[in-house]
Amino acid sequence: MRIRGVARRTIRLADDGCSVEILDQTRLPFEVVVRELRTLADAAEAIACMRVRGAPLIGVTAAYGLCLALRQDPGDANVAAACKELLATRPTAVNLAAALDAVRAEVLSLPLPERAAAAYALAARLADADVATNRAIGEHGLALLEAAAARAERGAPVNVLTHCNAGALATVDLGTALAPVYLAHDRGIPVHVWVSETRPRNQGAGLTAFELAEHGVPHTVIADNASGHLMQRGEVDLCLVGTDRTTATGDVCNKVGTYLKALAARESGVPFYAAVPSSSIDWELRSGAAIPIEERDPREVACVAGRAADGRRLEVRILPEASRAANPAFDVTPARLVTGLVTERGLCAASEEGLLGLFPERRQRAR
Amino acid sequence: MRIRGVARRTIRLADDGCSVEILDQTRLPFEVVVRELRTLADAAEAIACMRVRGAPLIGVTAAYGLCLALRQDPGDANVAAACKELLATRPTAVNLAAALDAVRAEVLSLPLPERAAAAYALAARLADADVATNRAIGEHGLALLEAAAARAERGAPVNVLTHCNAGALATVDLGTALAPVYLAHDRGIPVHVWVSETRPRNQGAGLTAFELAEHGVPHTVIADNASGHLMQRGEVDLCLVGTDRTTATGDVCNKVGTYLKALAARESGVPFYAAVPSSSIDWELRSGAAIPIEERDPREVACVAGRAADGRRLEVRILPEASRAANPAFDVTPARLVTGLVTERGLCAASEEGLLGLFPERRQRAR
Repeated sequence: MRIRGVARRTIRLADDGCSVEILDQTRLPFEVVVRELRTLADAAEAIACMRVRGAPLIGVTAAYGLCLALRQDPGDANVAAACKELLATRPTAVNLAAALDAVRAEVLSLPLPERAAAAYALAARLADADVATNRAIGEHGLALLEAAAARAERGAPVNVLTHCNAGALATVDLGTALAPVYLAHDRGIPVHVWVSETRPRNQGAGLTAFELAEHGVPHTVIADNASGHLMQRGEVDLCLVGTDRTTATGDVCNKVGTYLKALAARESGVPFYAAVPSSSIDWELRSGAAIPIEERDPREVACVAGRAADGRRLEVRILPEASRAANPAFDVTPARLVTGLVTERGLCAASEEGLLGLFPERRQRAR
Repeated sequence: MRIRGVARRTIRLADDGCSVEILDQTRLPFEVVVRELRTLADAAEAIACMRVRGAPLIGVTAAYGLCLALRQDPGDANVAAACKELLATRPTAVNLAAALDAVRAEVLSLPLPERAAAAYALAARLADADVATNRAIGEHGLALLEAAAARAERGAPVNVLTHCNAGALATVDLGTALAPVYLAHDRGIPVHVWVSETRPRNQGAGLTAFELAEHGVPHTVIADNASGHLMQRGEVDLCLVGTDRTTATGDVCNKVGTYLKALAARESGVPFYAAVPSSSIDWELRSGAAIPIEERDPREVACVAGRAADGRRLEVRILPEASRAANPAFDVTPARLVTGLVTERGLCAASEEGLLGLFPERRQRAR
């Protein structure tokens, strides 16, 4: 990701070799603020307050949080306490638990003096692995954009519609759904992104638009309501979204509103793809209907945060005081509405057979 | 509509018998401000600045605006100039032109001294006719809610999902899509309304929620993105929306996002109805795809207005400065997704035959 013209990741080790620098996403899109995490508490706060968000980035931040705890005290009791504290920040994030498990497994068999260094080395590998996964998703997804470009009028951009933020900011770098977009743009394929603002938290308007703008990718923000109309009028070549959890059968759980876009895409014959790092596949789950949907604070619907005319960041309330709000945060797009899944191992159908074709090592376990 | 416990219309003649009082909708939902229109310019400004909005209410306001002009100067030249000024405020509003035509036809054959009084009398009749139309739509739509209540568990509310504001505030009173809801509520049928906030202008969050709250109708505001999820989970018994223009074949043009709700309704087997006063039917038009869609100021997407913590009404920007926005204001829901139309003459299928069955006088003209 380029920010202010400079390539950077959302998280990295500071020059002192032990603190961790993150881009504070609560200050975007109007301020670029790098925040230094020096303690476990700093890392836990950053995750809980959504200074970092996006499943892959949360995982890597938690891993570094455990590193910071180990620097202070590498004992088993502290490892357990630190894991507990980090897990409690976003209890439903699968990647968070997986990253903590990986670090814990790495260090618990080592002598105390070697633990912190080993943890830092593993956290760095996890960060690099995320970028490698995203790059692979980008290369596989790029084929879809190239095919669309070949069908488009000479020189006309490929119009991609995305929802929420499945970009570099949700990961260590590159993103999942936006990885093919960045690769296409960097290689000279003209691409234009329709950015769905993604109420109630506006991750499209505030984060996806920000990172596309910083990277120089042409894009246009729309109200979430406008996606169907654009597809009816032939303004979208393909939809490309991320996923929080994908079932073994290809149902895609993602930010609320994704399902509506998939319905509109099918109705207008627009291909609909989800970018699925294998870490987001829940091989135990056979139906998206079984996924419990997080009901978030109604305040997110009642209020909107942004920048006032005087430059201050503040929140305005849009509902009457007497009105209540509901805020389901995700929805499930059934596999039958999904044209295909873009994983780090390639494209496949949104089905059990499709996924098992790419991940044959899961075949035995699946039954 | 009850506001602050008192029954009132959105527009009415002031006690002086010539000024016109409107509820200033730009101040809602946080302030109830009645504004007095004393001149043609006041009326034109109120329409242009959307202090009044909704096709039926715009029509009645324009009629009263012409009355105010006639009081000053009932001459033919002034009538023509006033009509021109009022028409320019919202050039695409069909009801506006129709109301002006009606008043003009009424007064031009009269002697100058009688014109203003005749115009006021006609404006009052137009206002009453709007309420009568809405009451008839309410009675016909009520049957749908009664049937849903009969299917619901004993005492469980009928869950209606609506979009934008097709309530009392869009009309002189009662509303179109909300008329059945108010009648049901007033007659003791338990009803709960899911209010889609309706970005970018938030007419759901700011207006529909306000009028339902004032009238005491249980309701919950949701992000536009959440409607599909709620229908998937069986939380919606029927969808009921308004329309800005309906084709002779039953295609429904309404606030952008309506189409997405119709798609989700069909997918989950939820009935989807549009409340259609016959004034909104365009008998000349045979396909919604031919309707030009108004592209409004992108600033509506880039910024959100609301009430800050200090009580001030202000706007916050949610997009990075470098990002542009697009803002199509309406979309078209094809007749095949519409379960039925609720008109002042009864319910019918969303089709040419359905409409002509209720409006047989249009049969000859239709071919």
